[in-house]
Amino acid sequence: MTQTETASEALFQPMIWQQDHLQLLDQRLLPHQEHWLRLEHADQAATAIRDLAVRGAPAIGITAAYGAVLAACECRQQDKAGWREEWITQLGKLAQARPTAVNLGWALDRMLSIELPEDDPLARLEQEAIAIHQEDINCNRQLAALGSGLIRPGSRVLTHCNTGPLATGGIGTALGVIISAWQQGRLTDVFADETRPWLQGSRLTAWELTRHQVPCQLIIDGAAAWLMASQGIDWLIVGADRVAANGDVANKIGTYSAMLAARSHGVNTMVVVPWSTVDMNTTDGGNIPIEQRADSEITNIGGHQIAAEGATSWNPVFDITPAELVDFLVTERGIIANPDQAKIAELA
Amino acid sequence: MTQTETASEALFQPMIWQQDHLQLLDQRLLPHQEHWLRLEHADQAATAIRDLAVRGAPAIGITAAYGAVLAACECRQQDKAGWREEWITQLGKLAQARPTAVNLGWALDRMLSIELPEDDPLARLEQEAIAIHQEDINCNRQLAALGSGLIRPGSRVLTHCNTGPLATGGIGTALGVIISAWQQGRLTDVFADETRPWLQGSRLTAWELTRHQVPCQLIIDGAAAWLMASQGIDWLIVGADRVAANGDVANKIGTYSAMLAARSHGVNTMVVVPWSTVDMNTTDGGNIPIEQRADSEITNIGGHQIAAEGATSWNPVFDITPAELVDFLVTERGIIANPDQAKIAELA
Repeated sequence: MTQTETASEALFQPMIWQQDHLQLLDQRLLPHQEHWLRLEHADQAATAIRDLAVRGAPAIGITAAYGAVLAACECRQQDKAGWREEWITQLGKLAQARPTAVNLGWALDRMLSIELPEDDPLARLEQEAIAIHQEDINCNRQLAALGSGLIRPGSRVLTHCNTGPLATGGIGTALGVIISAWQQGRLTDVFADETRPWLQGSRLTAWELTRHQVPCQLIIDGAAAWLMASQGIDWLIVGADRVAANGDVANKIGTYSAMLAARSHGVNTMVVVPWSTVDMNTTDGGNIPIEQRADSEITNIGGHQIAAEGATSWNPVFDITPAELVDFLVTERGIIANPDQAKIAELA
Repeated sequence: MTQTETASEALFQPMIWQQDHLQLLDQRLLPHQEHWLRLEHADQAATAIRDLAVRGAPAIGITAAYGAVLAACECRQQDKAGWREEWITQLGKLAQARPTAVNLGWALDRMLSIELPEDDPLARLEQEAIAIHQEDINCNRQLAALGSGLIRPGSRVLTHCNTGPLATGGIGTALGVIISAWQQGRLTDVFADETRPWLQGSRLTAWELTRHQVPCQLIIDGAAAWLMASQGIDWLIVGADRVAANGDVANKIGTYSAMLAARSHGVNTMVVVPWSTVDMNTTDGGNIPIEQRADSEITNIGGHQIAAEGATSWNPVFDITPAELVDFLVTERGIIANPDQAKIAELA
C-alpha cells in the first residue's frame, strides 16, 4: 500500500499488492461476503479476471499488471536466463482472460514494452505494476476534484450502475466524484439506481457508499424520472464504457432513460471517465457495438426463474446517450461543457 | 362460465363461479404454480382478498360480490327468516379486507342495495354477482375494441405492469387492447417492462401473454428509452390506478419514465381504463396521494437481501404522468385524444 493513499481509499481497494502475491476482493460474493482471494500465480490472476472476481476495466488492467509480475517470478524461478520467452507466453494467456476489456491488453502491453535491467528485472516489473495502479488512483483523484468542484452545496444526486473503487484502482470515476462531493459537504442526498439486471447499484454501489459513510437511497431504475419530478434532484452523474469522438456516451443500459429524464427536469448531467475511455477512432454512438446478453439475466434472479415460461427478453448491456444530453464531460485532461466533436478534439 | 365468453377469455379468468363456490387462481404463486383456491365461505373470500391471492381492483370487486353470495347462503342456512342482519355484518367484514381498493366497497354496496324477493333472495344475489362480473368482461371488450382500433398493422408495442385478465374480470385493460390487437394481426412485437420491484411484468404479464400465444419480450424498466430509440416502437400502452379530472395519470412507478421516453421518440401513448377509474373529484395529479412502501421491496428479492446492509430506498408505488404526455385516453365511454379537463368533463 502506497503512503499517498488516504485512509478512506485504503479501506476500499479491491486489490492490494503484497510483494509476492495480490490480495483481491471477490466481487461476485458482495455485498453478502467480503472474501479476499490470495493470488500467488499468474494463472490464478487470469482465472479471477475470466470469472469476474474482479470487474471494471481499470481494475482488470491493474490486476493483469500484477499478474504479469507473478508470471515473471515463476518464469525466473524455472529458468533464470531464458525466462522471458515463457513469460511472454504467460502474458498471452492473461490477455485472453477477457478479450473485450481494453485496459487488460493495454496494461500487459505496457509491462511488455519496458526495458528491463538484467540483474533485477522483477523489481522493475513490480515498480511498473505499482505505477499503473498508482496512476489510476491519481486519475481518479483528479476526476473527483474536477467533478465535485462543479457541484454546489446542498445538492441531491442520482447515479447509475457501479463506478466506484471496485471498478477502478482508486476512489472511482462517477462515484469518486460523489464520494468526494459528500466528504466536502456539498451533498444532502445520494440516490442510486439499483441497475437491473445485474443490480450493480444495489450490490456494489450501495456497499461502497455505505463503507464511505455516505447514506445511499436505492431506487428502481424506472423511478428516476419521478424522483427528479418530485424530489428536486440537481445532478445525474454517471461513468461510461466508451465515449465517441463526438461525445456520444455508451454506458450501462438505463443510462439513456435517466439522461432523457434529467433533460426534461433541468437536472444537470455529468459523465466522468479517464481519458482512455474516450475513443477518438469511433466517430459517434451509432458505431459503438452494443452487446446483447442472455434472456436468463432478466427472466431469472439469483438462479431462480422469475418470469413465465416461454417469455424471452431484449437484453442489451449498454445504451447510447447522444452528446447533446451531456452537460459536462469530466476527464483528467479537464472539464468539457456541452461536449462535441470539436471540443473533444482539442483535448486529444 | 357464461356462454358469451370466448374460449381465449375462458382459459384465463382468475375467478370462476361454480354455483356454490368460487374457484380463484392464487396470483401469489404465479407464474411457477397455477394453484386454484376453492372458496366456499365468505371468510375465505375475505382472506383471499386481504392476503393478495387476488389483486387488481376490478378482480377484487368481483371476488367480493361472489363472497357476498356465499355469505348470504351461510346466513340463510343458519336463520332463514332473520338472515339479512347477519349478512350485513358479514359484508362489513368483507369490505374491510382491503379498505383501499375502491371496487371492493363499490361491489358490496351494489349487492346490498338490490331489492331481494323474499322467496328466493339467493338466486337474485347470484344473478347480481354474475352481472358485476359480466359487466367487467363487457367493459374490457369495449376497451379492447376501441384501443386496438387505434393501432395500425405492423406495430410494435411496449406495456408496463400488469393490466390483464388477472387484474380484471375479462381480458384486461391495457393488456386487453394488446392481446386483441395481436389477435387481429396488428402487432409484430410485444415488449413488457419487468416492472420492479414486484415484477408484475415478468411474473404476471408475461404469463398472461404467453397463455394467449402472444410472444412476450421482457425488458428491464430502464431499457424503455433505448428500446424506443433503437427498435422503432409505435405504442406505449398502459392502464392506470387513477385518472384525475384534468387527465393526469397515476399508475405503477416507472410509467412516467416510459411516457417521457415515448414523447422524446414520437411513440404514441395510450392509457386504457374503465370509466370508474376516472376520478372527477381529483382536479389534477398533484392531489393524488402516492403510497410509499417498505425498503425491503427494493433491498430484498424473493426474501433474500440483495442490497448492502445500511442502504435504504425511496420506494413510491405510483408516479404521476401529466396529461400532456397522454396521446389517447381510452374508456368504455369513448376515446379522448390529447385528454384535458374540458374533454373529460364532456364524457362525465
